[in-house]
Amino acid sequence: MPETVVTADGWYCLHDFRSIDWTSWKYASSEEREQAISEFHQLIGKWDDTEKSKQGSHALYTIVGQKADFMMMFVRPTIEELNELETAFNKSKLAEFTVKDYSYVSVVELSDYMGQVDEEDPNIKGRLKPILPKWNHICFYPMDKRRQGNDNWYVLEKDERATLMYAHGMTGRQYAGKIRQIITGSIGLDDWEWGVTLFAHDVLQFKKLVYEMRFDEVTSRYGDFGSFYVGNLLKPESVEQFLHV
Amino acid sequence: MPETVVTADGWYCLHDFRSIDWTSWKYASSEEREQAISEFHQLIGKWDDTEKSKQGSHALYTIVGQKADFMMMFVRPTIEELNELETAFNKSKLAEFTVKDYSYVSVVELSDYMGQVDEEDPNIKGRLKPILPKWNHICFYPMDKRRQGNDNWYVLEKDERATLMYAHGMTGRQYAGKIRQIITGSIGLDDWEWGVTLFAHDVLQFKKLVYEMRFDEVTSRYGDFGSFYVGNLLKPESVEQFLHV
Amino acid sequence: MPETVVTADGWYCLHDFRSIDWTSWKYASSEEREQAISEFHQLIGKWDDTEKSKQGSHALYTIVGQKADFMMMFVRPTIEELNELETAFNKSKLAEFTVKDYSYVSVVELSDYMGQVDEEDPNIKGRLKPILPKWNHICFYPMDKRRQGNDNWYVLEKDERATLMYAHGMTGRQYAGKIRQIITGSIGLDDWEWGVTLFAHDVLQFKKLVYEMRFDEVTSRYGDFGSFYVGNLLKPESVEQFLHV
Amino acid sequence: MPETVVTADGWYCLHDFRSIDWTSWKYASSEEREQAISEFHQLIGKWDDTEKSKQGSHALYTIVGQKADFMMMFVRPTIEELNELETAFNKSKLAEFTVKDYSYVSVVELSDYMGQVDEEDPNIKGRLKPILPKWNHICFYPMDKRRQGNDNWYVLEKDERATLMYAHGMTGRQYAGKIRQIITGSIGLDDWEWGVTLFAHDVLQFKKLVYEMRFDEVTSRYGDFGSFYVGNLLKPESVEQFLHV
Amino acid sequence: MPETVVTADGWYCLHDFRSIDWTSWKYASSEEREQAISEFHQLIGKWDDTEKSKQGSHALYTIVGQKADFMMMFVRPTIEELNELETAFNKSKLAEFTVKDYSYVSVVELSDYMGQVDEEDPNIKGRLKPILPKWNHICFYPMDKRRQGNDNWYVLEKDERATLMYAHGMTGRQYAGKIRQIITGSIGLDDWEWGVTLFAHDVLQFKKLVYEMRFDEVTSRYGDFGSFYVGNLLKPESVEQFLHV
Repeated sequence: MPETVVTADGWYCLHDFRSIDWTSWKYASSEEREQAISEFHQLIGKWDDTEKSKQGSHALYTIVGQKADFMMMFVRPTIEELNELETAFNKSKLAEFTVKDYSYVSVVELSDYMGQVDEEDPNIKGRLKPILPKWNHICFYPMDKRRQGNDNWYVLEKDERATLMYAHGMTGRQYAGKIRQIITGSIGLDDWEWGVTLFAHDVLQFKKLVYEMRFDEVTSRYGDFGSFYVGNLLKPESVEQFLHV
Repeated sequence: MPETVVTADGWYCLHDFRSIDWTSWKYASSEEREQAISEFHQLIGKWDDTEKSKQGSHALYTIVGQKADFMMMFVRPTIEELNELETAFNKSKLAEFTVKDYSYVSVVELSDYMGQVDEEDPNIKGRLKPILPKWNHICFYPMDKRRQGNDNWYVLEKDERATLMYAHGMTGRQYAGKIRQIITGSIGLDDWEWGVTLFAHDVLQFKKLVYEMRFDEVTSRYGDFGSFYVGNLLKPESVEQFLHV
Repeated sequence: MPETVVTADGWYCLHDFRSIDWTSWKYASSEEREQAISEFHQLIGKWDDTEKSKQGSHALYTIVGQKADFMMMFVRPTIEELNELETAFNKSKLAEFTVKDYSYVSVVELSDYMGQVDEEDPNIKGRLKPILPKWNHICFYPMDKRRQGNDNWYVLEKDERATLMYAHGMTGRQYAGKIRQIITGSIGLDDWEWGVTLFAHDVLQFKKLVYEMRFDEVTSRYGDFGSFYVGNLLKPESVEQFLHV
Repeated sequence: MPETVVTADGWYCLHDFRSIDWTSWKYASSEEREQAISEFHQLIGKWDDTEKSKQGSHALYTIVGQKADFMMMFVRPTIEELNELETAFNKSKLAEFTVKDYSYVSVVELSDYMGQVDEEDPNIKGRLKPILPKWNHICFYPMDKRRQGNDNWYVLEKDERATLMYAHGMTGRQYAGKIRQIITGSIGLDDWEWGVTLFAHDVLQFKKLVYEMRFDEVTSRYGDFGSFYVGNLLKPESVEQFLHV
Repeated sequence: MPETVVTADGWYCLHDFRSIDWTSWKYASSEEREQAISEFHQLIGKWDDTEKSKQGSHALYTIVGQKADFMMMFVRPTIEELNELETAFNKSKLAEFTVKDYSYVSVVELSDYMGQVDEEDPNIKGRLKPILPKWNHICFYPMDKRRQGNDNWYVLEKDERATLMYAHGMTGRQYAGKIRQIITGSIGLDDWEWGVTLFAHDVLQFKKLVYEMRFDEVTSRYGDFGSFYVGNLLKPESVEQFLHV
């Protein structure tokens, strides 16, 4: 059995994708719509308070295409808090006009492929308990390391895996400042092994990075991907406009 | 044909995942909601009685993410009882406000890879007819042993399988006290070959265990997995709060 | 091209899995429910008459888990009769409260791997036009013979296939009296190549048989499986209780 | 790059599978049902006129099992006509009581594997612009030629493909008079590469033919199949009985 | 790691497939239908204005078969504009009578396999910011380059990939004037790596081109395809007729 890599695990993470049932939303009374928006702002206000007190963070983006209309991303110290957040949203007025599309449960993760992770290091702490950037665009996709015939990540020795991950990291490093990446681990928590969340000012950088990485051996031979979701920042002050009918 | 491993089979097992239709739940009258909750407590009371008389056991957890809102897990001496339990729930008032998400039918199983199982041994009996722990977290996933090209579990000799299973067991043993694992067999009963149910005080242990096990050869080359469901203990006294709108 | 095996084909077969919409069933008036049950008994009565006159047979089982609430299995001399049976059910009052889950179209089949089938032999006739047993439990699953890389059933010579099938048959023979098996062919009729229907007094025998068979080379290398459905006998006199709300 | 085979292409083809929403059909007034049936007969009348003037052809079959309740198959000189036919049905009264199940878009095709196709030959013309037989049974399935590892149809030389197709054709020829086969190409038009539509007087011939063909190397190594639909002729004069509630 | 190919990226692209809920459309009042059509024409008018000012382009086609009733294709300088376009449609009256079927998010792309792309070249500019042709037929499908066993595009050297792409391009060149092709890249944006949109005067050319290309090594060994959608031009002046009930 190859040596396992130790991971440092930070805040728990929930990605929650929803669509609006626009027809029922339009047929609601304006009072109902106002109440729904007002309640949603109250929820956002609570999430903001949590973020200000560094007890978690969140992001809100509209999603392009039919996969979803918007997504909420939460990081919190415990998985119970994530469960409470989603239930609170489900019980809210706005939820009456939304449809569930997809969700993902994971935990922020750093691996020690590049050398041991010191969880007391303030920089590491900041990465394990990230305040999510409010950049223009988000990209989310889940992924597996392949276990198929001769392309089986989990039978490789740790050194070989480390070498492949190092080259992969070098590709990513070229996008410093252009893309912020948060890796969350989901083995034992959701259907894929990892979730990748990317933030960018320029959406085209997602395509450039993911395309370039596809040629890294760690991806070309060992990467399997789920669905890709791409979205635009939804500022709290733009919620009314987004929902205006 | 390689030698088959004998299994000792215990209680039958049903995992039942459901979501709440929160909109119709909110629009129900408070009398209806009270009736639904009251009936559900009566069902829980019956399940408790069964558990007290050691004629079965059950667990109740909320599920994180959109896959389901909650899950009920039952073990019973006969499959007819499982059928009656689900039908009784389906006929209950609360069920009018729930949607079916997923279920799994299996039977608690011990295999004799590690030496012959003595079904008269009280310890073995306790494992075949388990009282489910009320630990903070649950993790459920179904799995197959792979039969694909050169990675075909079922063409291996029993000795080789036993060696691989032994190493796998050693990985698991490190989590003693942190994780309780119940293996249920579902060959001939449901779509995957086994169901794995894990209980933990600390949800992160699921990720650590499942990740570490992925490097065991029995998993890296021979394990195929279905969806993973992770949840938080739902105590009977918290049902009102969970359903409060 | 390897030599094809001749099959003897008997009655046509329809497996029909349905769920109850329990909420609309409960909200129906008791008159409507009584009418639905009464009509359903009339249908069962007709099916019984057909069975008594040896013009076909049927089975009725509740299904465990969320895949379905019950299943009807029919064998008839012609496929037109199967079509009429399902349409008659679809037009019945009870059908207004049911949801379609899954169905399977096939024909009872015997192959001459073990020597030529004499269709005039009364024993063979009985197997081609089977009266379905009213045993406690049913298990249904569809399957394919694999055609994948080096594991390709259809490129094997007939002798090799016969040898593998013979060993497989020997495994099955150990379950004589415990399990009755009906093989139905569905190549050209439905999405898998065969349907396997098992009947048992003790549901655990399904697991034992299917598990043991998985080690037969014909399965380990050449068997691909669909979903497994397992159920409990629903006697006509228990229909009221099953549907009582 | 291996040499491509030239195809002769005839009429465009639409297979359209639908189910009846029997509950809403029953709850419609008898006037509505009469109107729906009457309009449907008018549509059939138009299709008959087209067929009489040899500007196209159609077939109407009930489907066995839950995949669909009936299917309409159309061949027409242009794809625009197919689009108009389906839209006309969608706008009809009967369509209000139907649910879409599956459809397939393709074009009648002859390939020159067996020697060059002379499109001016009256026999060839008749096969490219077929009047669909009104035989008792229909069987439809889509298929691909496999491109997987060592079993890759599209890297074979034309001669090898022709040899394999010739043997396959010989298998089919044994069913002359028992089965009529229409091959439609759908590369670039729908999700599979070809659609196969079989007509038979005796439904069992579908199983015999498709089973026998499975041993042809062109199928055993190079054939991948979608869902199989099997049905019974629905004569226009039987529509009332089929829809009678 | 093989050398990555640089791409030139142009306008962002959204394909949006929808079906009409014909029953609710028919039961709407004629005023509602007129309002819906009138609003839709206003949207088309805005899209036309954008196209006239060369700030984007759009296409409108009906889709053959049940996959969708129609599709809207948009290209725009920013992804935010695509998001606004779909939201504006979702909020429109016509959207109340439509169902979402499928969408695809990508960006117009040219690769430098054939030599470096000069983005200042007016011809290149025109291809990166294309005015979509109003040809009779459209064909859309998404695709991946395969990464499977020995057929792994991403481990090939750039020279080998360029040679294969060149041969592929030669196949395509034979269809000049018959087919216009727009390649959009979707790595990091949607579930497949590329979207292919073809326009033709004669729909049969789609089949001929895609079939011929299947024998190119770049496809036979390295191409994986999603669903194919084929449609007929829907001119603005034909919208009334299309929606007339």
